[in-house]
Amino acid sequence: MIAEIIAVGSEMLTPHRQDTNSLYLTAGLNDLGVEVGFKTIVGDSLRHLTSVAKIAIDRADIVVFSGGLGPTEDDLTREAVAAALSIELNRDPAVLTDLYKRYAARQIVMPPNNAKQADVLDEAILLNNKNGSAPGQYLDTTVNGDRKIVILLPGPPGELKPLFDDVCKPRLAAALPSRHLARRMLRMALIPESQVDTRTAPIYKQYADVETTILAGHAEIQLHFLSAKPTLAEAQARVDELAEKIEREMDDSIFSSRGESLEEVVLLMLGMRHLTLAVGESCTGGLLAQRLTAVPNSSSAFIGGAVVYTTELKTIFAGVSKETIDSKGAVSEEVARELAQGIRARTGAALGISVTGLAGPGGAPSGPDSEKPIGRVYIGLADGQQTQVRELNLTGDRMRIRFWATQHALEMIRRHLL
Amino acid sequence: MIAEIIAVGSEMLTPHRQDTNSLYLTAGLNDLGVEVGFKTIVGDSLRHLTSVAKIAIDRADIVVFSGGLGPTEDDLTREAVAAALSIELNRDPAVLTDLYKRYAARQIVMPPNNAKQADVLDEAILLNNKNGSAPGQYLDTTVNGDRKIVILLPGPPGELKPLFDDVCKPRLAAALPSRHLARRMLRMALIPESQVDTRTAPIYKQYADVETTILAGHAEIQLHFLSAKPTLAEAQARVDELAEKIEREMDDSIFSSRGESLEEVVLLMLGMRHLTLAVGESCTGGLLAQRLTAVPNSSSAFIGGAVVYTTELKTIFAGVSKETIDSKGAVSEEVARELAQGIRARTGAALGISVTGLAGPGGAPSGPDSEKPIGRVYIGLADGQQTQVRELNLTGDRMRIRFWATQHALEMIRRHLL
Repeated sequence: MIAEIIAVGSEMLTPHRQDTNSLYLTAGLNDLGVEVGFKTIVGDSLRHLTSVAKIAIDRADIVVFSGGLGPTEDDLTREAVAAALSIELNRDPAVLTDLYKRYAARQIVMPPNNAKQADVLDEAILLNNKNGSAPGQYLDTTVNGDRKIVILLPGPPGELKPLFDDVCKPRLAAALPSRHLARRMLRMALIPESQVDTRTAPIYKQYADVETTILAGHAEIQLHFLSAKPTLAEAQARVDELAEKIEREMDDSIFSSRGESLEEVVLLMLGMRHLTLAVGESCTGGLLAQRLTAVPNSSSAFIGGAVVYTTELKTIFAGVSKETIDSKGAVSEEVARELAQGIRARTGAALGISVTGLAGPGGAPSGPDSEKPIGRVYIGLADGQQTQVRELNLTGDRMRIRFWATQHALEMIRRHLL
Repeated sequence: MIAEIIAVGSEMLTPHRQDTNSLYLTAGLNDLGVEVGFKTIVGDSLRHLTSVAKIAIDRADIVVFSGGLGPTEDDLTREAVAAALSIELNRDPAVLTDLYKRYAARQIVMPPNNAKQADVLDEAILLNNKNGSAPGQYLDTTVNGDRKIVILLPGPPGELKPLFDDVCKPRLAAALPSRHLARRMLRMALIPESQVDTRTAPIYKQYADVETTILAGHAEIQLHFLSAKPTLAEAQARVDELAEKIEREMDDSIFSSRGESLEEVVLLMLGMRHLTLAVGESCTGGLLAQRLTAVPNSSSAFIGGAVVYTTELKTIFAGVSKETIDSKGAVSEEVARELAQGIRARTGAALGISVTGLAGPGGAPSGPDSEKPIGRVYIGLADGQQTQVRELNLTGDRMRIRFWATQHALEMIRRHLL
């Protein structure tokens, strides 16, 4: 069974907007054992849309449209699919009444054009849309002797997602041969993809029935496992068995075996040990604090800290000595050490972490830091007993250097807590 | 002239990866006056890829492939395009020699499979790839009497972008009728899209020759203008004239008329007035500082501040009184006021800005804040003379509330500096 996802809307053919619904729909279709073979993005042109619909219905078993169900002249998905299948659109009186009621409730007269949202493909089942006016449509039909399932969904993600999950997926599951999918994801930070592949390929290649994907993302490597079996228990057993073998091989390089982010794992580990954390950030300028506080309930372990972008603030908020800064430079092992110790002492946190470095694009204009390269970063971690400092030499642009610095800081905390 | 962009790679048919090259290619094609009519994403299957290539060459004038030019068995774009056009692939001796040299330089014997990277479509021009081993290909041909330009580009963005800009775009510009495009973008924060449209539509509708797009993004509205004329001066004059009229209508709601971000504008305005800024962040937890420090050279105006996630840190770093917190709650006008004033005084900045609020998902467990709704945020701005505080009632999830809070804070600073 192959699916095609068609995103409808001229705005997605500009440099500014991208189709994102298809990622969500792909995950949902994969859950049902359906692979996506093609994705097409087409504008609001009846001719283009009809031809795209014809091609998709010809080459795929399941065709999912997102968008083009609204009330404007540009909303043409219903008309295009009817033309592609050479079937009629029938105006549904119940949907029409519902549309009139919606407008009446807002005390507005419904513009006549809106009635087209009640047009239903002949023999299609309506999918009730709780979050918008246009219902989805689901057509299970036969074209030239082949079974084809054609699904029309509204474009706004807030309408599409619940409609797909609550109404469409159960219907598809009942219509398709029963296959159960299990997934697992292992995540590792700061390790080269080639090393992960070299060490894990001999293991995952023994599991031909598990689809393994290695993805290199933002300063992390993800290993995705997917297995489809007649029962969920069988599928789960396969991915779990493989994941456990790979966990043994990669050992504590793996920070997450259930999909949690690195910051979530660090906060969980701190919470379990009843420890608190504070940050003193220079070159990352709040990014480390921001990543930690983006996690709900982070306040149980993360208490805050200081963004010390100037030398003065390093002294004011963390007691870093002016002499150290003047003699060694703000980007130095010594300042990282004093900043970690100082922020810990000032805040009363169990752990203090510091980041100081040169994120670029310009370097330091003068003083000891002017000799240090862009990408030089020092991270300090103080626990009241001892203070570790790591020197990093990162590459890339400002954004990349800042992100990698926070990733190293989080990984340093995680390994300290292991 | 209509273009189709085809992204080749099975990983882009998973829930994890998305084609992003097409946004870049679309901007480049638009610059040449070429509209993108279709985008297709297809996996590494010769059958699928050949059929997609045939369809694209039939319906578009310019077809740009990204990906599938590597040395592995999965890299099939060359073969598919040759099959779709029923033409030959010729192994180019110069490219082959270059491939051998690359391997020799690394003292590795070239795997025989790699030679396929030297296969060139009959009559295609090679596009020299400085950043990788596979050259691009450019074929200007005739199919059933129609002119078709078919372009093959490597998938990695670091190879595709320079190859497209430096080698491909000049060649396309020479091949296409001369049209010059001018763009402008106006950006507004915290204003409803419908209001922008109501006020600007009567103006931009008078400019039928300028394409106007309204995009609602992260707590901002962008107005994009695009004009194509025989000369750049004519095109620029049209977009500038329209932009100026809309600037007059929307007045100081527009924070940027040259594309700068809100944080860049705030930093520029601070710099021009020789003012410094410090932040005291509670619920945004470093996000405001992070946005400001993401801008290169932000240190000339932004000096830092404190992330005060606990009540204790609000006192330690900004001198907020414990009595105020106990009686009014940490999420209160009074705490926002003391935090803005305190962070300003402690850091010596000209302006102090504070953010305190409930970002959710959980509310305050007890005390005065437990009666306040999720989304309640107070922002304080102190300049040494007076302190303004704004109460916000934001909606959405934690991420949205935090981002909107920082947007309001930046906009409050901007309006203060006008």
